[in-house]
Amino acid sequence: MSVLRWAERDHRAALPGIAASVAVGEHLSAALFTLEPQAVVPEHSHDNEEFGQVISGSLELTTGGRTVTVGAGDGFLLPAGVRHGARAGAEGCELLECYAPPRDPVPATGLGDSA
Amino acid sequence: MSVLRWAERDHRAALPGIAASVAVGEHLSAALFTLEPQAVVPEHSHDNEEFGQVISGSLELTTGGRTVTVGAGDGFLLPAGVRHGARAGAEGCELLECYAPPRDPVPATGLGDSA
Repeated sequence: MSVLRWAERDHRAALPGIAASVAVGEHLSAALFTLEPQAVVPEHSHDNEEFGQVISGSLELTTGGRTVTVGAGDGFLLPAGVRHGARAGAEGCELLECYAPPRDPVPATGLGDSA
Repeated sequence: MSVLRWAERDHRAALPGIAASVAVGEHLSAALFTLEPQAVVPEHSHDNEEFGQVISGSLELTTGGRTVTVGAGDGFLLPAGVRHGARAGAEGCELLECYAPPRDPVPATGLGDSA
């Protein structure tokens, strides 16, 4: 078992205003993203199913031309292959995500690889 | 995409002092567990890889005779098939978990199916 003390782990720039730390397992991976206020994740898609949980702040999430606000304590489930983009709210956003199959690396290559 | 407003979802008793709400995808599932203070998850194992994130409170997690405390903001990654048990701390614990492949149902059958 690996205990993930996120605050002690390496966090790397993923996109402007966005840092990420990633933990990779065999069947899934987890990532903690810290987004500055209004930081933007451009629309992209990937073959990994994605679960997200907003730890603090908020996230405006867009799929299929529809934007929803996901606040602290709420999550979302996004099927593989669905194009999506996001923007952090006015207070920024701490966002936990899990991917299956594992998505690695996220931060080294940018989030929009398959955009 | 499904937005998971956990507070509005059905939460069911999983074990004494533990309630759970589950969201199931194709490649992973997510569950939000609310553990009362000192609530116990008996040692068990399952074929799903497990990621956990402590949202609030704390969790004493035991694997292989070793117990570690995982506090709010920290997580853990547990390979499939590893026996583990847990006990919530004095303030209880709100625990988010993801499983791959999906683990469903968790709450209806109890957490210790393969114990």
